[in-house]
Amino acid sequence: MLADLPEKIRSGRAVVSVLGLGRVGLPLAVVLARSGLHVIGVDTDERRASIVSKGDMPFYYPEIGEWLSEAVATGMLTVSNLGQSIERSDVIIVTVGTPTGTQYQLDYSQLHSALREVLKVDLRDKAVILRSTSVPRTLVNIVLPLLVKESGLDPDTDFALAVCPERILEGQAHRELYELPEIVGGVGSLSNAVASELFRKISPKKKILLTTPTGAEMAKLFTNIYRYVNFALANEFALWAEKYGEDGLQIIRVANDGYSRCHIPKPGFAGGPCLGKDGFLLDNDPFTTIVSVAWKLNEAVPQHVVTSLIRELGPLSGKRVAVLGLAFKANSDDVRLSPSAKVVEILRAYGAQVLVHDPHVRGTMSLEEVLQSPEVVIVANNHSAFRDLSAVIDKSGCKAVYDVWGMFEPSEFSRVRYMRFGRAT
Amino acid sequence: MLADLPEKIRSGRAVVSVLGLGRVGLPLAVVLARSGLHVIGVDTDERRASIVSKGDMPFYYPEIGEWLSEAVATGMLTVSNLGQSIERSDVIIVTVGTPTGTQYQLDYSQLHSALREVLKVDLRDKAVILRSTSVPRTLVNIVLPLLVKESGLDPDTDFALAVCPERILEGQAHRELYELPEIVGGVGSLSNAVASELFRKISPKKKILLTTPTGAEMAKLFTNIYRYVNFALANEFALWAEKYGEDGLQIIRVANDGYSRCHIPKPGFAGGPCLGKDGFLLDNDPFTTIVSVAWKLNEAVPQHVVTSLIRELGPLSGKRVAVLGLAFKANSDDVRLSPSAKVVEILRAYGAQVLVHDPHVRGTMSLEEVLQSPEVVIVANNHSAFRDLSAVIDKSGCKAVYDVWGMFEPSEFSRVRYMRFGRAT
Repeated sequence: MLADLPEKIRSGRAVVSVLGLGRVGLPLAVVLARSGLHVIGVDTDERRASIVSKGDMPFYYPEIGEWLSEAVATGMLTVSNLGQSIERSDVIIVTVGTPTGTQYQLDYSQLHSALREVLKVDLRDKAVILRSTSVPRTLVNIVLPLLVKESGLDPDTDFALAVCPERILEGQAHRELYELPEIVGGVGSLSNAVASELFRKISPKKKILLTTPTGAEMAKLFTNIYRYVNFALANEFALWAEKYGEDGLQIIRVANDGYSRCHIPKPGFAGGPCLGKDGFLLDNDPFTTIVSVAWKLNEAVPQHVVTSLIRELGPLSGKRVAVLGLAFKANSDDVRLSPSAKVVEILRAYGAQVLVHDPHVRGTMSLEEVLQSPEVVIVANNHSAFRDLSAVIDKSGCKAVYDVWGMFEPSEFSRVRYMRFGRAT
Repeated sequence: MLADLPEKIRSGRAVVSVLGLGRVGLPLAVVLARSGLHVIGVDTDERRASIVSKGDMPFYYPEIGEWLSEAVATGMLTVSNLGQSIERSDVIIVTVGTPTGTQYQLDYSQLHSALREVLKVDLRDKAVILRSTSVPRTLVNIVLPLLVKESGLDPDTDFALAVCPERILEGQAHRELYELPEIVGGVGSLSNAVASELFRKISPKKKILLTTPTGAEMAKLFTNIYRYVNFALANEFALWAEKYGEDGLQIIRVANDGYSRCHIPKPGFAGGPCLGKDGFLLDNDPFTTIVSVAWKLNEAVPQHVVTSLIRELGPLSGKRVAVLGLAFKANSDDVRLSPSAKVVEILRAYGAQVLVHDPHVRGTMSLEEVLQSPEVVIVANNHSAFRDLSAVIDKSGCKAVYDVWGMFEPSEFSRVRYMRFGRAT
């Protein structure tokens, strides 16, 4: 009986499958295993499945890595690249990626692959939870009709179905999966009960916020777009400050200081696999919207960096340009839709010889190598490891340093011209 | 000696003129008088000057009204409509309005009038403080060259000059003038010292944030635009929710609840004499920006309200429409650039018979009058006095109520169709 599933979860007898062992799915699988549920991690990428099955991390995340090896060692987490392993599970959580393509079109190929696996098993008395970020009405217009038609079962009676979007900050899942409220948008009250019980198993104190399936999809997008638009607004302010001959970061600090109604973020790159695309998921509309302008603005910042350098230093063709930081955010190795990677490509288009160092990204050069007589150094990411580099950069022999994130103060450089995004030169 | 002015302020021997006794100038004049300085309030509007000189308020603000009558009674605040009275003063604070015109062009006529008065007196050893919101570089490109040319004096040596923008929430000056940090952008260190001392006289604990004159102008605009854009974003989310058949306010609550990175405001009208125009002050640029799209969106919300009503009820021509709330914000009588006033005008353009009630705005009708068999009731403002009106509206015999601010829940209405901005009907 589906109605027995909440109690089965509570008592730890339920088995959970997590489809997709990426940066959303793997931390969730590990935390669920740690909370006392048997978890089957499934990934169609054989290499990734093999790495995880040995208790090793396929990407940089030390805190989750420690728990992963424990969970694999105790047998609470097993891994498979075969979808049929989900037959044994009571709850199936879909965490696959929903990226956008080169024309910014939505790419649901991974979602459809996952749903095909889900449909290979008998869904009776099981629960399906959509954890991926999705376009509003994905559950009611795509997932629900497909599952009903192919299974012949009644939703919320024979099987549970809910949207429960991920909202952790990348790299903070080990804390935030225990602390953040969960948004639950089930197709009915039984689905809500099952999904709520699953997350309360992680922490009984976890707050559950019930809404509709479409409301849950939209709440996730609102969360990300709110941040993304505010990053864009900070960047717009920075550009106004440049235009008026001022230092945007300094003015933003003044505007925020002691003023509770003002929380303008720091100017800098805004992108990455979530924020960069989520606007399009909500806002696939022909009219100009705040989201569309915010996107245009943030996407133009890497070009603005290169244009500013050329204005100050002349053409970059053939010149050595050191780029520090390739990941899309601080202290991460994730380069998906990274604005730093975009800067690298733009620099190459202008004929520069680009040397990239990122302490967290494998395959990049060492700091010593890239700082061997570069013409320009671009500090493109705010990794903590970069905080103390001003003296080294100042002695590198470069003509200019471009500080995207305002990590340094002008006074830290005596030989090198200091340039900062949002600061007039 | 100008260098003696800070001590003269500290000891209470300085005289301060405040040019403009509006919603910025009058509370400041009253608070300065209360802090132990002799204040001369100047307004070219004879009627306003006469009212204030008797210790009466020219607009609704009870907390400041009480202090005003004290300050007039004790002689700490005197009032004049003649600019030459500022001859006796050491500090001249310009608080006049800087509105935009019907083509959204900047209107500096009041500022130029004030500067003409300032230039009638000998500025030696005096300080001039620009408190009005202004376009970046107003001080350095307009005020400074004018004062230097006409007076023949040296800035920061013979006279002090600084931008110190107002940032209080309208109606909160009696608290916020004591608590908020002050942004001080002087033309030099002596100007900064004089302006800082003036605000520390109000409260020694007041935080002083030093920046450039242009930085101070921009920080004020950033502060307001940040809020305005976030209101627009909330409204954009509300419109998406309508499109997807959901309730935007409910989804925004879910997105914000317990999630420290998300502070989406409530959807509703955004306008008024500050927020509605400040974007144009910063952003007088031919290209589309976030600010310009936010402005377009917020300005279109009143039409959206009327369009939604017509879609549900048919043409409004000849129909009685009750509008509750005319002021631009809660618990205020300020109707300047009020979106509610815009709704009223749009309704009239559609031929409706519009009945307006606002408990704070003189000349509007009573609640009983406007609720006599209206076809529609629009709750256009979130005055506290409106909170408990759902039962009265439900019994008024109207067909629909439109709740701009989400003050009510659908369940509060049994006879009347409930419509809410951002909620699909």
